[in-house]
Amino acid sequence: MFEPSPSRSLTDLSEHYLHVRQRSLDLLRGISAEDMQIQSMPDASPSKWHLAHTTWFFDHFILRHYQASYQPFDPHFDYLFNSYYDAVGSRHARPERGLLSRPALDQILAYRAHIDSAIATLLDQQPHNAELQTLVTTGLHHEMQHQELILTDLKHALSRNRYALPTLKAPHCTEVNSPSFSAFGETITRIGDSGKGFSYDCEKPVHRVFLEPYRLRNCLVTNAEWLEFMQAGGYRDPTHWLSDGWYTCQQQQWQHPLYWEQKDGVWIELTLDGYRPLALNAPVCHISYYEADAFCRWAGWRLPTEFEWEHAAREGANLGGHFADSNHWHPQANSASESALAQMYGSVWEWTSSAFAPYPGFEPLQGALGEYNGKFMANQYVLKGGSCATAAAQMRHSYRNFFHPHQRWQFSGVRPAKN
Amino acid sequence: MFEPSPSRSLTDLSEHYLHVRQRSLDLLRGISAEDMQIQSMPDASPSKWHLAHTTWFFDHFILRHYQASYQPFDPHFDYLFNSYYDAVGSRHARPERGLLSRPALDQILAYRAHIDSAIATLLDQQPHNAELQTLVTTGLHHEMQHQELILTDLKHALSRNRYALPTLKAPHCTEVNSPSFSAFGETITRIGDSGKGFSYDCEKPVHRVFLEPYRLRNCLVTNAEWLEFMQAGGYRDPTHWLSDGWYTCQQQQWQHPLYWEQKDGVWIELTLDGYRPLALNAPVCHISYYEADAFCRWAGWRLPTEFEWEHAAREGANLGGHFADSNHWHPQANSASESALAQMYGSVWEWTSSAFAPYPGFEPLQGALGEYNGKFMANQYVLKGGSCATAAAQMRHSYRNFFHPHQRWQFSGVRPAKN
Amino acid sequence: MFEPSPSRSLTDLSEHYLHVRQRSLDLLRGISAEDMQIQSMPDASPSKWHLAHTTWFFDHFILRHYQASYQPFDPHFDYLFNSYYDAVGSRHARPERGLLSRPALDQILAYRAHIDSAIATLLDQQPHNAELQTLVTTGLHHEMQHQELILTDLKHALSRNRYALPTLKAPHCTEVNSPSFSAFGETITRIGDSGKGFSYDCEKPVHRVFLEPYRLRNCLVTNAEWLEFMQAGGYRDPTHWLSDGWYTCQQQQWQHPLYWEQKDGVWIELTLDGYRPLALNAPVCHISYYEADAFCRWAGWRLPTEFEWEHAAREGANLGGHFADSNHWHPQANSASESALAQMYGSVWEWTSSAFAPYPGFEPLQGALGEYNGKFMANQYVLKGGSCATAAAQMRHSYRNFFHPHQRWQFSGVRPAKN
Amino acid sequence: MFEPSPSRSLTDLSEHYLHVRQRSLDLLRGISAEDMQIQSMPDASPSKWHLAHTTWFFDHFILRHYQASYQPFDPHFDYLFNSYYDAVGSRHARPERGLLSRPALDQILAYRAHIDSAIATLLDQQPHNAELQTLVTTGLHHEMQHQELILTDLKHALSRNRYALPTLKAPHCTEVNSPSFSAFGETITRIGDSGKGFSYDCEKPVHRVFLEPYRLRNCLVTNAEWLEFMQAGGYRDPTHWLSDGWYTCQQQQWQHPLYWEQKDGVWIELTLDGYRPLALNAPVCHISYYEADAFCRWAGWRLPTEFEWEHAAREGANLGGHFADSNHWHPQANSASESALAQMYGSVWEWTSSAFAPYPGFEPLQGALGEYNGKFMANQYVLKGGSCATAAAQMRHSYRNFFHPHQRWQFSGVRPAKN
Repeated sequence: MFEPSPSRSLTDLSEHYLHVRQRSLDLLRGISAEDMQIQSMPDASPSKWHLAHTTWFFDHFILRHYQASYQPFDPHFDYLFNSYYDAVGSRHARPERGLLSRPALDQILAYRAHIDSAIATLLDQQPHNAELQTLVTTGLHHEMQHQELILTDLKHALSRNRYALPTLKAPHCTEVNSPSFSAFGETITRIGDSGKGFSYDCEKPVHRVFLEPYRLRNCLVTNAEWLEFMQAGGYRDPTHWLSDGWYTCQQQQWQHPLYWEQKDGVWIELTLDGYRPLALNAPVCHISYYEADAFCRWAGWRLPTEFEWEHAAREGANLGGHFADSNHWHPQANSASESALAQMYGSVWEWTSSAFAPYPGFEPLQGALGEYNGKFMANQYVLKGGSCATAAAQMRHSYRNFFHPHQRWQFSGVRPAKN
Repeated sequence: MFEPSPSRSLTDLSEHYLHVRQRSLDLLRGISAEDMQIQSMPDASPSKWHLAHTTWFFDHFILRHYQASYQPFDPHFDYLFNSYYDAVGSRHARPERGLLSRPALDQILAYRAHIDSAIATLLDQQPHNAELQTLVTTGLHHEMQHQELILTDLKHALSRNRYALPTLKAPHCTEVNSPSFSAFGETITRIGDSGKGFSYDCEKPVHRVFLEPYRLRNCLVTNAEWLEFMQAGGYRDPTHWLSDGWYTCQQQQWQHPLYWEQKDGVWIELTLDGYRPLALNAPVCHISYYEADAFCRWAGWRLPTEFEWEHAAREGANLGGHFADSNHWHPQANSASESALAQMYGSVWEWTSSAFAPYPGFEPLQGALGEYNGKFMANQYVLKGGSCATAAAQMRHSYRNFFHPHQRWQFSGVRPAKN
Repeated sequence: MFEPSPSRSLTDLSEHYLHVRQRSLDLLRGISAEDMQIQSMPDASPSKWHLAHTTWFFDHFILRHYQASYQPFDPHFDYLFNSYYDAVGSRHARPERGLLSRPALDQILAYRAHIDSAIATLLDQQPHNAELQTLVTTGLHHEMQHQELILTDLKHALSRNRYALPTLKAPHCTEVNSPSFSAFGETITRIGDSGKGFSYDCEKPVHRVFLEPYRLRNCLVTNAEWLEFMQAGGYRDPTHWLSDGWYTCQQQQWQHPLYWEQKDGVWIELTLDGYRPLALNAPVCHISYYEADAFCRWAGWRLPTEFEWEHAAREGANLGGHFADSNHWHPQANSASESALAQMYGSVWEWTSSAFAPYPGFEPLQGALGEYNGKFMANQYVLKGGSCATAAAQMRHSYRNFFHPHQRWQFSGVRPAKN
Repeated sequence: MFEPSPSRSLTDLSEHYLHVRQRSLDLLRGISAEDMQIQSMPDASPSKWHLAHTTWFFDHFILRHYQASYQPFDPHFDYLFNSYYDAVGSRHARPERGLLSRPALDQILAYRAHIDSAIATLLDQQPHNAELQTLVTTGLHHEMQHQELILTDLKHALSRNRYALPTLKAPHCTEVNSPSFSAFGETITRIGDSGKGFSYDCEKPVHRVFLEPYRLRNCLVTNAEWLEFMQAGGYRDPTHWLSDGWYTCQQQQWQHPLYWEQKDGVWIELTLDGYRPLALNAPVCHISYYEADAFCRWAGWRLPTEFEWEHAAREGANLGGHFADSNHWHPQANSASESALAQMYGSVWEWTSSAFAPYPGFEPLQGALGEYNGKFMANQYVLKGGSCATAAAQMRHSYRNFFHPHQRWQFSGVRPAKN
């Protein structure tokens, strides 16, 4: 587990840099330049754009400031690959990223190599620059976020054209069999990250939250349970749905999770491996907040708050000892001894009932990075945990993923709670 | 102050019923049947529809169940005046309420008289039926909510045609001059209503919330302050705005609050009295959540949470003693001695940063009334207090008004907070 | 038959004025002020608006210029009741005509009386003013056009709310039983109006058109024939449809003509008399150009051009002698002896395959009236004849009605042609 | 000039086939696979799709029927590259053609080679099959149509991203200096193609049209004249515009032709060569029907009908003798001696006032090819002549190009007429 702490040697950070940067390319093995070009909806971006934008982050926020006699690789890339609308300047329109046939993929790969070399040099030259190390670390976490988007965006694009479907490195979800609920008593808990390892501004500051007693299920809702919901008319009965959710359900004509379809009477789903029969014991995936909420209402449960989830995760970690520190998860952690609360990390992102909002005392980062999270704090809901496509180094108790309640192209599922 | 408690005599409830029902008609004095017919946007409803729908509530949820040999006034009214989509049955489409030229206003007034008479009889016949009294009380609070909508919806409709603008009973906001912030220390506070007086399901149950220290301004943001924001380019600079807010601001071409306009270099605004020069010391009104949030960000402040607001309101009440009980406000309460926190009630609704969500342990009402609040709990933000158009009996610390963050035709303003 | 010719005495025009103006009110007998207020789609206007706008025509184009010391009845009416966007000035937005609750119907009726009195005085004072007589005549024809819109717009509005449906003076279509085709040989025919009676600018100048031989059906397509088309899958098979038509058909989910519906297995349709069982031998009505064209393609026929239709109409008139002059129809003309080509006038408007375009040598009227027709000459198709709701004085061979090909709330049907 | 007549030897057709097929590839020299992937609006298609679809035409309509033991190159291509919605079967959605990253360009080029080889063999094997020759010829004309779309669609796509703009083979328009009008007397003229050379169904049958006297300008409207129109407020004054045109102009915020922009006070325009200063004497290009019509109205002129245009073109050809037969143009024809009517072919397509409609006696082709033109005959206007991007073999007097009146990404301009 990487930590940008003073004790960490420079070599570690340089190695971590190479490792993370390489993973972006590894994910796209077998994908053509033409596949990397396409954008299937405004919410998604082409793989090529992700490869360029994550590189631009290091270019724009680090090299421009730290490199003596900085010369941009290409002065137009600021316009093309900036996703931040204001402090940095104007940018290419988001829904038109799929029209960026130029620069070609080859040029983007050359751009990556150029920047990687410059960052390596910089880290060598300034081994004790803590601010630099923090920025590089931030850039790597930014890239890990985009790695998951590379997969979810590409999956969406591939779903629109079945011809010669390529397969991607396909992580799989764990399956669990015996659902039960774990009880948690009333408490004042500490929420957020205390700052030893990496975390985003929106995970700070640590603050106290009072929790009434609650129960949280030890495992995720499965495809089999979701089929029950469907067979019980879950997608046709407005009484289960939030008002905005029902409107969306009808307008989008939702009748099942995204990527499911029925073929000759059998349910199949698109995975990163291609189309496969539905795994009944696997966690349901690609559902929206609205669907997650409707399911819980139908079942007599509810979604947990982000605070309930985080408290339960920390409690489990304290008991099981699978965390390197109080916040960061280890890949080995998903073992049997944690079975009290299984599938907390590495299966699907878990919707919570908490709207994404600033913590008490929240201070955005200074400068352009200050837009990183703060400006998205409306109409989005927090998801906790991490999916099979999430980089291990990204998973921590305090991480707050967030999406709009109608969105379902992420690897998102549901863990019920009740009082 | 009305309370549906056992100690309340029947006469009080019957009188209260007549008083509330009459107020709906009083608000519309001077408004023609043609004016009451129009619907200027899907969010709003015609006055005639409000008069009918509030009556249908008593008809459908009370008379149908409690009246021996119930005969509907008109069997089609269930379809026309139901605003609940599911448990009750199909209904006339909301955006087409303005097409209901039939039944005529005269018929709706006859419907009101018919139902009022039947409710009076029922209350006489069943003087000790507590459930009946609760339902009647709920119906009256429902009607008070619609009374404010009658005014805001009609104001919006009138704004589209200046010809022969009628004037309405025009409540005015109080003005305040010396802004300062009151400090509140960290605490575990009790939030919600304990159930002695009337409250909605979403205000329950009482539960504990931990508050970090915070400060709350003693008065509302004024029109003068808003002009400063405008002159500083507040509507043109995306750095102040939430991402969804900036999108809305651009798409709707917002440049000032709703109903403001510049005439010969002077700012005027539409009030229920007609167009008037902008009162500089009056609270800014008709702003959206997005605008309220952008203003605070620009000023270096933030919106309070609903919990901070409610705690402060209760503290003020405890000190000042202007509340009949721990939750309910008295009209005389807005006096000088409360100046520590002025304008908490009776000026404008105050946006909070809290998404409208269920309280821990929330149980919706049983049956069709269960949709009353629960289904709206997504994408809306809580507003606290009460406006100049809010019925006094509706104002209480625990009341949670809620609207979408882009909506601004309500009497909504902003009270800043900071850490 | 009215003709604004020199031989016509002044009394005739004054009487004709009163007759036409009264007919507008007669059509709305039994309709309430609230009914006259509503606008059910942007294409339609409220009855009250029609009553005001037709009056404004006389006010604005005649009284303002001919009346000594002209004082407007109300200076705001120019803004509210002008339907012409440019030469005359700004105007109230068309889709918001339904929001004009003020002025009230009573005021509009007073406006009508005021203007009628002024026009009567003016005609008395200037008995030999030919230009004045032409303008008054134009205003009356303008009003006759709006009379048909009063009925079609109101029918559309009433269709959205079945409650207490009022009935209107209900003209009925004639029924015919033995369809056959009449043959016409190649010819150079004269098209358009030579100017003796009233006609619009778009009917001029008379010009020559070469016609290849063609055949025209002697009667309109019936509801029974339309049911056959439906049962044969006409609304589901794209091969019958124009490309834009098929797109519209799918988007609007057309499955039958407007106002048809199936109740307990029986087809009923909304008429001005209310809902009635479908009359199988009556002409199909409320179909769009796209549907008319698809039907003909399915049946192996085609729509006639406007020139074929007009030539056939003139030929029929020449043979039968039912026309007062070469262009104008007499009510008695629809008699048995015209059976060679029946239902040419007074049943439904008949779609032609001719796009509405200027005739060779077309000159628009001077001034604001020049917008009357010219600016609509794109994307619309010519309809010939006249419906059961068309004023008799409006029916003439050269009349060119026109609507967009997707519109179907007019009384529009189809008469097939073939080579 | 190619003609599929009996006298034409087989070698000619085989050679013509290779020539036309090669031209599609030649046009795209220097364009990358990524550039060929993108689709910038639903009206346009990716270059790769054009290359595949034109090949599919030969595959589907010829090889499938004439080739013994036909084996499809790829059975999925019918679904992917069919642009015909009905008789042939379901197809990939048009607005999602840009998502077809698979098959890759390489595969499409292999597909082309495979089909070309098969067609060559087929023509060798069946040298006297007239139907086959007609179908191959139709396929070549179909491909020539798409060649122009390859250029216009690619130009549109390139316009959305200036980065590293490639240049295409850039045909240029001729310039002319002395505008005048040529007069034509009243006549009965023959319109359409008599069938000796190739033509589409919509150009038949030859029929007679009566023309009133008219005048046609000898040259096209220039960029200089268009600047005058702009400076005179042409885009701001509704009196010049058709009603639908004005609506479009406002909604699209048109202020100049497509691809024009002002840079440092100088007008530049995007050409296939990149951005260049506006050539004042060149014909204005990339204007819609609405703009062409508004310009003429402003100038006191009008658009010609398609019949006026075709008659004038034939008259000029008869006089000048630059046509191989009565319908087909020779590249050498655009010479000085034709100056009476210059720029009729090879500069820009010329909007006419004629809605695209069937000729009297029109019979669509049998089978799936019958949809070729017939289904588009609504809401489109005929353009005559041919642009600098039009293949020479496509230019003939009877050719009827057609587009919607709001479309302006084609090489379209205007030649005025008057009475």
